[in-house]
Amino acid sequence: MKQKTGKFFGVGVGPGDPELISLKAVRILGSVHTIFAASSSKNSHSVAMRATRPHLPQGTPVIRLSFPMTSDRKVLKECWEQHAATIVEELEKGKDVAFITLGDPLTYSTYGYIAREVKKIAPYIEIETVPGIASYQAAAALVHLPLAEGEESLLVLSGSKGGEHLRRLGRQVDNIVMLKAYRHFQDIYSVLKEMNLAETTIGITCCGQPDEKIVTDIKEMVDKKPNYFTLLIVKNKKT
Amino acid sequence: MKQKTGKFFGVGVGPGDPELISLKAVRILGSVHTIFAASSSKNSHSVAMRATRPHLPQGTPVIRLSFPMTSDRKVLKECWEQHAATIVEELEKGKDVAFITLGDPLTYSTYGYIAREVKKIAPYIEIETVPGIASYQAAAALVHLPLAEGEESLLVLSGSKGGEHLRRLGRQVDNIVMLKAYRHFQDIYSVLKEMNLAETTIGITCCGQPDEKIVTDIKEMVDKKPNYFTLLIVKNKKT
Repeated sequence: MKQKTGKFFGVGVGPGDPELISLKAVRILGSVHTIFAASSSKNSHSVAMRATRPHLPQGTPVIRLSFPMTSDRKVLKECWEQHAATIVEELEKGKDVAFITLGDPLTYSTYGYIAREVKKIAPYIEIETVPGIASYQAAAALVHLPLAEGEESLLVLSGSKGGEHLRRLGRQVDNIVMLKAYRHFQDIYSVLKEMNLAETTIGITCCGQPDEKIVTDIKEMVDKKPNYFTLLIVKNKKT
Repeated sequence: MKQKTGKFFGVGVGPGDPELISLKAVRILGSVHTIFAASSSKNSHSVAMRATRPHLPQGTPVIRLSFPMTSDRKVLKECWEQHAATIVEELEKGKDVAFITLGDPLTYSTYGYIAREVKKIAPYIEIETVPGIASYQAAAALVHLPLAEGEESLLVLSGSKGGEHLRRLGRQVDNIVMLKAYRHFQDIYSVLKEMNLAETTIGITCCGQPDEKIVTDIKEMVDKKPNYFTLLIVKNKKT
């Protein structure tokens, strides 16, 4: 008889503060046999591990999966397939496996790609996703800024196309969150200035981490290279 | 000497599942003297309490604050002021107070208004906001649908102006989440049909609650009055 396969969990560990993780995530991290973590950047790996480590039973193996920092779709696809195969191998041994991700696992995370590939290789594997608090929710809490109220709209963007998206949509929505704003920050800042939005924008770096910082005048960020964990909250106050 | 005032916490308790609350929220709920909860609808009150109750020490008083279901700004403002005054009265007694909200306290929640009024009445009160997992993150996890990947955009909307916002922005973004979609559902559905998006839309009702349901054909929702806890995830697959 074939051995029972393990269950695959995608676990959001929250923004980085080990207290901003859910009870469910803690329970699952305490019960699985093996943990996989992306190490796409040295920083993001250590931050995810800081949020997770206090909740792991001693001895649970944590295996790093390295992701290249590239936008070459072919290279990325090969990498996802290879990592998914590594995970499936573990699941096939009957081990329960968690793939941890900073923030929420379905918001700009590599987990979505990995889960898709795991499903392709081994469609019989049971998969469960555990949502997490996203960095931008923790950032909004830190600066006491509503993300959306009443019938307002909220647009969430990521860095690379930030300037382009902002130019096109910036005036049509009430609130904007831009994650990974370290990418093309100069361009993003120029568009915010053009649109008269720079003054109603707040920058937060390393949210949920010991060195988190609130930047009320985002002009300060232009001259130095912004931190990898930089996000912006833009309030589009219509007059 | 004046007695020390208490601290005011805005605590997101997550989508409804008592396990999808953060460790920090649990710690704070276990330490405050008094808890306030909005009872804008009978349902939402009991759901927030279901998520919270298992984490409350016996004897912590839970005080309901009733909010009228109206869009009359003047009526609402008076209500916020009155409730904020009630909360400040408790804080002035030196008691720590938590105002609990379903989901995330800064995403379409009454907490933002209340915190603003508390600050106005008693600017010296210390306020801390504890973020929470939003219903739409739990819904995405339930149906294994990424909210945003790579450089995609995510637009979050609420019900009343849903149809209008959709018509204007629906084609310009990659992913849309619509909360409180029970409002004007017919209108929202018509726009989705017009834009050829109805088939890539998934409806989730009562997410995180024992009676949660996934509706893959949202046409089913048109004929009956949709549940108060109805949200839609729309994938705008561009061809």
